[in-house]
Amino acid sequence: MKIFTYPGAPNPRRVHIYLAEKGIEVPFERVDITKRENRTPEFIDKVNVMGGLPVLELDDGSHLAESIAICRYFEALHPDPPLFGSDPWDQARVEMWLRRIELNFMMPVGMVWVHGSPLTAAVMKNQIAEVADQNREIVRRYFQFLNEQLADRPYIAGATYSVADIVALCTYDFAGYLNELRPEQEHTDLHAWHERVSSRPSAAA
Amino acid sequence: MKIFTYPGAPNPRRVHIYLAEKGIEVPFERVDITKRENRTPEFIDKVNVMGGLPVLELDDGSHLAESIAICRYFEALHPDPPLFGSDPWDQARVEMWLRRIELNFMMPVGMVWVHGSPLTAAVMKNQIAEVADQNREIVRRYFQFLNEQLADRPYIAGATYSVADIVALCTYDFAGYLNELRPEQEHTDLHAWHERVSSRPSAAA
Repeated sequence: MKIFTYPGAPNPRRVHIYLAEKGIEVPFERVDITKRENRTPEFIDKVNVMGGLPVLELDDGSHLAESIAICRYFEALHPDPPLFGSDPWDQARVEMWLRRIELNFMMPVGMVWVHGSPLTAAVMKNQIAEVADQNREIVRRYFQFLNEQLADRPYIAGATYSVADIVALCTYDFAGYLNELRPEQEHTDLHAWHERVSSRPSAAA
Repeated sequence: MKIFTYPGAPNPRRVHIYLAEKGIEVPFERVDITKRENRTPEFIDKVNVMGGLPVLELDDGSHLAESIAICRYFEALHPDPPLFGSDPWDQARVEMWLRRIELNFMMPVGMVWVHGSPLTAAVMKNQIAEVADQNREIVRRYFQFLNEQLADRPYIAGATYSVADIVALCTYDFAGYLNELRPEQEHTDLHAWHERVSSRPSAAA
């Protein structure tokens, strides 16, 4: 088993943090997305038809793409400590928050990246500046929303650290580091959450 | 237990089809999205902070939003027949395809709806026609992609009908019915799949 990955990119980082939290070691094989090694015909044909990272390869040569699908596979093999929730209701609540973070936070941050970053301009030929502007505003409002949500609980989905925190952390750092989108100073509960999850050893994975 | 829903809308429809496939009966309470009953302060405050449908309400008054989170909750309570895959690898493959369908198919169809439909113009004040155009093209390419994928298997995630088919069906019908986006006649494998999943009694749920 091995994982094709590019450390530092937001989607691969989810799996790196997840595995560190679980104490699972899997060999990594670096695929350089800046050289578009994940877009070669061979990679598309043999590894991931979508051309994305990360991808898990089993010893029999079969592949699994999509970061959360990979995490979920390891969750089934190594249930403890649970990072997708502990009982059906808790699992469903984690899933709800995971989806909210992805659809309402990661998606607009990605839109800013695709339509607003000079780094993607060469690849994305039809950038629309207005889309980046609209989504910057959506992200700003989402920081406010997250700050309100985190006023009465320590983690995104409740009392316990979960995969929803992992995805929120990767999105938050991606928003700040590559898109210059950061919460206001007054969003103190959101800042406290970020400090809380960033101080876990897994955050450096 | 009851489900706040608006039959016919694409996200609620996922849960209706899912429950029909499982043979689970849950009382529905209709919330009229055309009258924005899901956007009242009371609904936002008490039922779903995101203002979306469907939402599951338990007898103790707690709530669960996000269509797939609701399905997953019922899957944990009623595992058979499995609609999220049958073993860890199969479950992970279903999850991979579910995410691909949502991110690469539902998302662009939603963009066409939000930025291109006269029906949403009143609510979405800053429609960008170019976004609708870009996403129409993405959806067209995705029809081609799905047609190729379905050449060698009957269902989205493999040999067995799954929640990935449910989401793909709801997206396909939403694309055609409300956005005038339909596959080419030559996409015969995609048409055959649509006929296959639409002929199941659950599709009318």
